[in-house]
Amino acid sequence: MTMRVDAGLTPAPSGVPVGRPMPEMERPMPEAPGRRLGYAVVGLGQFALNQIIPSFARSQSSKLVALVSGNRDKALHVAECYGVVQKNIYDYQSFDRIADNDEIDIVYIILPNALHAEFTVRAFQAGKHVLCEKPMAVTVEECDAMIRAGREADRRLMIAYRAQYEPYNMEAIRMAREGELGTIRLVTSDHGRILDPSVPADQWRMVKSLAGGGSLYDIGIYSLQAARYITGEEPVEVSGYITSDRNDPRFAEIEDLVAFQLRFPSGALANLTSSYSTSPVKRIQVFGSKASLVLDPATEYERHQMMVKTGKEERRVQMPEGNQFAAEMDHLAKVVMENREPKTPGEEGLRDIRILQAVYRAAREGKPVLLSTTDAPTR
Amino acid sequence: MTMRVDAGLTPAPSGVPVGRPMPEMERPMPEAPGRRLGYAVVGLGQFALNQIIPSFARSQSSKLVALVSGNRDKALHVAECYGVVQKNIYDYQSFDRIADNDEIDIVYIILPNALHAEFTVRAFQAGKHVLCEKPMAVTVEECDAMIRAGREADRRLMIAYRAQYEPYNMEAIRMAREGELGTIRLVTSDHGRILDPSVPADQWRMVKSLAGGGSLYDIGIYSLQAARYITGEEPVEVSGYITSDRNDPRFAEIEDLVAFQLRFPSGALANLTSSYSTSPVKRIQVFGSKASLVLDPATEYERHQMMVKTGKEERRVQMPEGNQFAAEMDHLAKVVMENREPKTPGEEGLRDIRILQAVYRAAREGKPVLLSTTDAPTR
Repeated sequence: MTMRVDAGLTPAPSGVPVGRPMPEMERPMPEAPGRRLGYAVVGLGQFALNQIIPSFARSQSSKLVALVSGNRDKALHVAECYGVVQKNIYDYQSFDRIADNDEIDIVYIILPNALHAEFTVRAFQAGKHVLCEKPMAVTVEECDAMIRAGREADRRLMIAYRAQYEPYNMEAIRMAREGELGTIRLVTSDHGRILDPSVPADQWRMVKSLAGGGSLYDIGIYSLQAARYITGEEPVEVSGYITSDRNDPRFAEIEDLVAFQLRFPSGALANLTSSYSTSPVKRIQVFGSKASLVLDPATEYERHQMMVKTGKEERRVQMPEGNQFAAEMDHLAKVVMENREPKTPGEEGLRDIRILQAVYRAAREGKPVLLSTTDAPTR
Repeated sequence: MTMRVDAGLTPAPSGVPVGRPMPEMERPMPEAPGRRLGYAVVGLGQFALNQIIPSFARSQSSKLVALVSGNRDKALHVAECYGVVQKNIYDYQSFDRIADNDEIDIVYIILPNALHAEFTVRAFQAGKHVLCEKPMAVTVEECDAMIRAGREADRRLMIAYRAQYEPYNMEAIRMAREGELGTIRLVTSDHGRILDPSVPADQWRMVKSLAGGGSLYDIGIYSLQAARYITGEEPVEVSGYITSDRNDPRFAEIEDLVAFQLRFPSGALANLTSSYSTSPVKRIQVFGSKASLVLDPATEYERHQMMVKTGKEERRVQMPEGNQFAAEMDHLAKVVMENREPKTPGEEGLRDIRILQAVYRAAREGKPVLLSTTDAPTR
């Protein structure tokens, strides 16, 4: 028996009953870990610290090698906790020197929305690949510039649409795409939470010049994504209403409540909302001609719940929860290694910004906005 | 001790533990039943036979005294089952002779929508009060004529909006109105079912000249009602999309899927749907600044479920289920006896028809329709 020495984390081979001790000779050898690409995380806010950085421990093809922060003390502390060497700590001024650091393959941008474009372009200029948080940027022009910079540098750009890497949402997409729900007629999705000025991560979100928009940009994008990835179609028309209490200091610059509708080429419709002033909700419901599906919560970090209703019969669908952050980081690492395009490239981010901008316009002008479908992808 | 012989169905007096046998002398005397007004049920379809007629047994102030049907054999059978005397069976030609029948106080119209106006007006001309199923009628003009006929006859007109007499919906309305949810920002409601051509009650619903409209008229009206009775406001603007597969024979004449939006004066928004081609759904969700509320199912005949979510805390609200059909029939009987207006008069039905017509227009013209609020009631 040949022993393989490059042991990694692999699932138990099928056919091996769990829990039965195996004689030494029968025990399958752990497989080699894949090569891991090095990530620099840019921005050490709540989300980076609590979700992203701990998720490297769950990844197969990614490792944390560098930190970029305006707060050196915080960066030093995080570096110590996660074994990042001091020389790999950068600030926003020294950021471009990552070009000289071969340990860094990918830059993960977790900054206020208005900074996405600048740091994406600078990362490409430094020769790195980019994973960028959603929304991709503030304007369509910024998105175009980011995509162009990636092409010029021959580097990959992926938008961190975590739900598309999350097992429950992926299962819902599979069911929709494979016809298990019949023809998709309607998607409804609501994403809401209370914007809290006492939380640092919410402070920049109240500032238009940093956030680019309000609840629509921040969480309405989940409702929009749901409608697009469940139908697998691009909307041809949007309409919407926006309501914000301008006497509420939180909404002096950005919008609170958005109710918007999409019409798809097949005739499928979507009724979507986002809100910054109501109890937390992260809900997707899909109505097909054969069955309907409820994911609630739909876009949590974990503990998703999915029900499928066919006629009057209802069944719960249970999936193993997966670390969607590790999954998306590994996805980009793998496509980089295999020289492929990511599932959620810059073009996907751009599409959402175009649609969200059209929602703003529809609400402002009080009439639906038709969308060009010339750039729609084939799925 | 004087025994009253006219004992009726009354609830056990409060304070009397159920199940404990009482000595004869302690036993409270059955209360006098209130006076019961006599109902003529017009139309003996599924809904009348399975829901309405059996509900008289649960009523306090209403009794079934007459039947109107085009099918004499069916009417004779029903009359025998429920103790209606043969002389009180009418058909659609002999209907007007109810004028000579003092046993009949109220006519309950459970006919295809296009016949509501005619039979309401004829009932008023016969000097009777009217309970009419929703939607009130097909056109605004018909509604106006019905209201006018009632006024001229000095008789009451009530639309059978059963949800407004159902304990869970009434509790949701109370919570919304008393501020327990905070400011109401958003109402979402979906009502859908599969239209089934093999079911007689669904056959006339596919015929435009009988139904007046499709899913919007039939069940979208529940979504609309929810938005109106929860906010307590009248919408000032509507928009909407309609999708129907014209190759599906069910939708040759009437619409299938409708997604529509309402804007209210307070800034509250509503995202509503109705569908005739998806798994059954009867759902209302309310998003307030303090809490959100889910009623799902919301508009069933029974087994409602209500959850209230405040922040991340969720609690189930349980109410005693009530017979909403008995409740609405008794409501009209009582207001007739007390010479008051019903909670859901013809004006309430007219408002919905106006709004539903505006939804059709908005969908047809591809732009929002502004609504006049001059006839809006004060609530």
